[in-house]
Amino acid sequence: MRKVFQAELQQIGEELIQMSQLVAQAMARAYEAFENVDTELAQEVIAEDARIDFLQTQLDERAIDVLALQGPVASDLRMIVGSLRMSASLERMGDLARHVAQLARLRFPQQVVPAKLAPVFAEMAELDIRIAVLLGELLETRELDIARQIIKLNEQIDALHASVFKMVASPDWTETAPTTADVTLTSRYLERFGDHGVSVARKVNYLVTGEWDPDAAGF
Amino acid sequence: MRKVFQAELQQIGEELIQMSQLVAQAMARAYEAFENVDTELAQEVIAEDARIDFLQTQLDERAIDVLALQGPVASDLRMIVGSLRMSASLERMGDLARHVAQLARLRFPQQVVPAKLAPVFAEMAELDIRIAVLLGELLETRELDIARQIIKLNEQIDALHASVFKMVASPDWTETAPTTADVTLTSRYLERFGDHGVSVARKVNYLVTGEWDPDAAGF
Repeated sequence: MRKVFQAELQQIGEELIQMSQLVAQAMARAYEAFENVDTELAQEVIAEDARIDFLQTQLDERAIDVLALQGPVASDLRMIVGSLRMSASLERMGDLARHVAQLARLRFPQQVVPAKLAPVFAEMAELDIRIAVLLGELLETRELDIARQIIKLNEQIDALHASVFKMVASPDWTETAPTTADVTLTSRYLERFGDHGVSVARKVNYLVTGEWDPDAAGF
Repeated sequence: MRKVFQAELQQIGEELIQMSQLVAQAMARAYEAFENVDTELAQEVIAEDARIDFLQTQLDERAIDVLALQGPVASDLRMIVGSLRMSASLERMGDLARHVAQLARLRFPQQVVPAKLAPVFAEMAELDIRIAVLLGELLETRELDIARQIIKLNEQIDALHASVFKMVASPDWTETAPTTADVTLTSRYLERFGDHGVSVARKVNYLVTGEWDPDAAGF
């Protein structure tokens, strides 16, 4: 019984890692489609989001089965409930990558954002991808320093997000209203992706140390 | 033991109802602050979001205790896991009401959105509030027709959200870029609030019928 249980926990852990890898890939490809005005690639990202959703459903069903059949308590129970939360955040990150791809498809054959903003969004997307890749490593190794790195990367995203709004508010801004709306939404999607990454990182930290904040754990 | 268990389940159900009521109130007050440029009221909404967050934590801790101590199976187990998901959606609805209040505070003493858009946003907010109120009734009565009403109301919100983007893209649009960005975000917040309401409604429907879609359940 215990052996089956450990195998199930292991499987849930592996599915979380797999989700984070798919999510990293989704954002990498979504941003590539966005940057290169590649509507076929955008379409692929949109279609493949169903795989992430499917993985979430599978993981959640497994977690519920483990709860029903093994009646875990204490840290095992918290780990399983935590996995349900983490899978929800990862699924949402997949949705946000899909939203970026959808904007690329919607504006094809035009760029979604003006060329002068491309570097800022490229940097935000790069940080998002790094966060998703690091989540996989954090889930695998439980090295809590990775959680802290993720939080730092997300602070950089927040600063870039704020800088986008400053540009929009500056007198030099001469873009059309629909472009301004697209810029606002893109920035918001990229910013939320990082926030969900931080939620997952804090959850891992909590499961390992009992603290939400890696810096409260005496690093 | 069974009696304690039923009392705990009841308590979780009541906390979900209470959360939905607080969320309805938060959106009603946030929109009032937004419409009337009332920075004090906005500040109250922002401060009171902590109560919703606290209720979520309390509910989640209770759910985990029930899982640990009572080892529920079958429909009871699904109900508890479902409650964790519903509390997460309700908490997020509270955040979105807070975001609306934060925009009102940020732009004080100006209106966030131009006067000609006020009716559209008032309607979206009104639909959001009705959805949150109906969620309380759905959670209380489990009358599945309410889930279907919620889905219909959310379709109206989606149509209004699309109409906002049409206005922004029309040649008559003469607003500044920061206003365009604020309009985009406000519309997105009001639209997401409804989506989360639908998630909760579908979850209740699923727990009662085993189907996600109320229309699949043979109504």
